[in-house]
Amino acid sequence: MKQKIIDYSIQLFDEKGFTETSVQDIVEGLNVTKGTFYYYYKSKQELLRDIHLYYIEYLVKQQEEIINDADKDSRTKIREIIYMIIQSIQERRRSARIFFREMRNLQQEYLAQNMQQRDLFRENVQKVIEEGIREGDFEENLNADMITRGILGITNWSYYWFNPEGDVSVDELTDMYTNMIFNGINKKE
Amino acid sequence: MKQKIIDYSIQLFDEKGFTETSVQDIVEGLNVTKGTFYYYYKSKQELLRDIHLYYIEYLVKQQEEIINDADKDSRTKIREIIYMIIQSIQERRRSARIFFREMRNLQQEYLAQNMQQRDLFRENVQKVIEEGIREGDFEENLNADMITRGILGITNWSYYWFNPEGDVSVDELTDMYTNMIFNGINKKE
Repeated sequence: MKQKIIDYSIQLFDEKGFTETSVQDIVEGLNVTKGTFYYYYKSKQELLRDIHLYYIEYLVKQQEEIINDADKDSRTKIREIIYMIIQSIQERRRSARIFFREMRNLQQEYLAQNMQQRDLFRENVQKVIEEGIREGDFEENLNADMITRGILGITNWSYYWFNPEGDVSVDELTDMYTNMIFNGINKKE
Repeated sequence: MKQKIIDYSIQLFDEKGFTETSVQDIVEGLNVTKGTFYYYYKSKQELLRDIHLYYIEYLVKQQEEIINDADKDSRTKIREIIYMIIQSIQERRRSARIFFREMRNLQQEYLAQNMQQRDLFRENVQKVIEEGIREGDFEENLNADMITRGILGITNWSYYWFNPEGDVSVDELTDMYTNMIFNGINKKE
């Protein structure tokens, strides 16, 4: 039942917005009582926090499998992280949109864990960039923090427009962006 | 008075959200009557549409000055467009956030003009990329549409985190991103 509440709320929050969705809307759609809702969640805030946490913790977990693999060099890790993010659009587009859009609706006490994971995700990418600089894969004079935010800009933005069923596949888009980030779009001599 | 309504509403919509802000909140803060509000705007929807239009039309106007300058090559145009977007964060951060965040709250009849301008902005960038491919500045095999969306991902995302008063200036950030997009981050031989 908890998972049902989460799944259905994700749908409602994405379609109507978090503020516009009431607990009443959720229980009506699921055909259960308010008591059932409040058995699992103290409030809509707690539910939104959990939706955010499931989303970001899942990404961090996948990410850490990639970056802890000693056999992979930093370029491979960046490519795989980009692929992983774009791939997750397919199954988690709604969760992702709610994550980015509704974060400001979380009260302070529910926000902390969430921001911690989000920062961790970014810092993990930054560590791979720094590793690549140290190992001579990437240019020495890069600002790893700003480059990381640029890379995440490319991938996070794709949640707003990318259609995995369209002309360009997840794999193709990953290649295009990895290639731009690594080699640039300038014509090579 | 119209400008005052717009400016104050931008502040409220950014802080509380569009849905959470009532016409009552707006007129109370400005110390005017509801009649004053409705003299200028039929509805909150119309006001949000205007806020969005002012924001995007201003960007398109600036952008077209850049791309219509025949003395500039495509690389210069891309650099100047990136600079212009990041620069606009300084004065228009709130408008930009409302633009991205509240667009889904606009009803169909108020959305059309807005989306048209947003698409125009993206298509203009794409034309510069295509021009650069034709003129041999950029790689021939690029997917101009996807590259354009990647570039706009980098710049649009910066609205969520970039602090123009921080350690990195608008000019420096523009250089870092232009350099990544044109030359990539891989260490050059």
